[in-house]
Amino acid sequence: MLKTFPIETSARHIHLSREDCDKLFGEGYELSPMKELFEPGHFVSVEHVSIIGPRDELKDVSVIAPLREQTQVEISLSDARRLGLKPPIRISGDLAGSEKCKIRGPKGEVELEEGVIVAKRHLHISKKDAKELQVQEGQNLSVLAESAERSVVFRDVIVRIGPDDFNVAMHVDTDEANAAGLTQNSQGKIVEIRYV
Amino acid sequence: MLKTFPIETSARHIHLSREDCDKLFGEGYELSPMKELFEPGHFVSVEHVSIIGPRDELKDVSVIAPLREQTQVEISLSDARRLGLKPPIRISGDLAGSEKCKIRGPKGEVELEEGVIVAKRHLHISKKDAKELQVQEGQNLSVLAESAERSVVFRDVIVRIGPDDFNVAMHVDTDEANAAGLTQNSQGKIVEIRYV
Repeated sequence: MLKTFPIETSARHIHLSREDCDKLFGEGYELSPMKELFEPGHFVSVEHVSIIGPRDELKDVSVIAPLREQTQVEISLSDARRLGLKPPIRISGDLAGSEKCKIRGPKGEVELEEGVIVAKRHLHISKKDAKELQVQEGQNLSVLAESAERSVVFRDVIVRIGPDDFNVAMHVDTDEANAAGLTQNSQGKIVEIRYV
Repeated sequence: MLKTFPIETSARHIHLSREDCDKLFGEGYELSPMKELFEPGHFVSVEHVSIIGPRDELKDVSVIAPLREQTQVEISLSDARRLGLKPPIRISGDLAGSEKCKIRGPKGEVELEEGVIVAKRHLHISKKDAKELQVQEGQNLSVLAESAERSVVFRDVIVRIGPDDFNVAMHVDTDEANAAGLTQNSQGKIVEIRYV
């Protein structure tokens, strides 16, 4: 029985559309894998971009492949404050009316009209594991993350069910990882809490 | 009956010793108040310093008055990562063996050998309110902080009892505030949780 699962921290990153990849890196440019990700065929590329807001910019932001229909920039609220941006907290892909920014690559710039979000925390899980844990797509969980100095119960963890080769992992951003004192080996556990 | 209390977010800041204040701002320099703080006689000064680590630096860091016995730099783990520092998570004043950094002011620099910490979250409370809430100095609480998208139960909230003019407030750093989606008006509530 699946009792705990890894909590993985997503640092700031960007997913590019074909069109924006062309503008930033040149026509028809192909991203090169640097590090494989847990989803088959997904990788952190060797390429990086700068994210530019009205107050400051973040250099060396990782580009995640493969390309997508729409460019999506995922940052933390700490990053947002630094940049002077006000992105909404959203599930990946839900970009309508989200924040704008400028992106700079080695071959050009993109004025992104929407696509900047803070990722809503979620539990990535296969159909099989979801059955075992008795959780449903879109369900809102509470997950206990224990650490030496600052344990947290994360509420509002959304279940995202994928194919059967999907590794189970909870995804949080760097602010969330820091607030709970998470390390590379931190585990989460679904809890039901009762306030007494 | 006191049911909820404000959760206040402490952005990065520094407390200076007389000696370090002299080095940074000049012999006998007096800090000027910009904004009063909740503890009587404490204020955010108009003066600022830069905090310098091996990877990067943070400009315009607020100096909090009055002066203290020992200089203390309070940053978030997001700040620490950016600076390339590894401060421990500590209650204010517990500085032995904590992280080092360089501090730059308009008149000079200080090589701080220890004093950089990430503040351990805590509940500031008067003796009177502590009696009402039935909490003791040093007690470890769980506090529910609700927000639209990412509610959190903060565990490991330490009770710090002060004089009777002490306003009750929970203090968190910017990572913790961001992880819980806190706003300026967020309230916390002591909860006892039972896992079912």
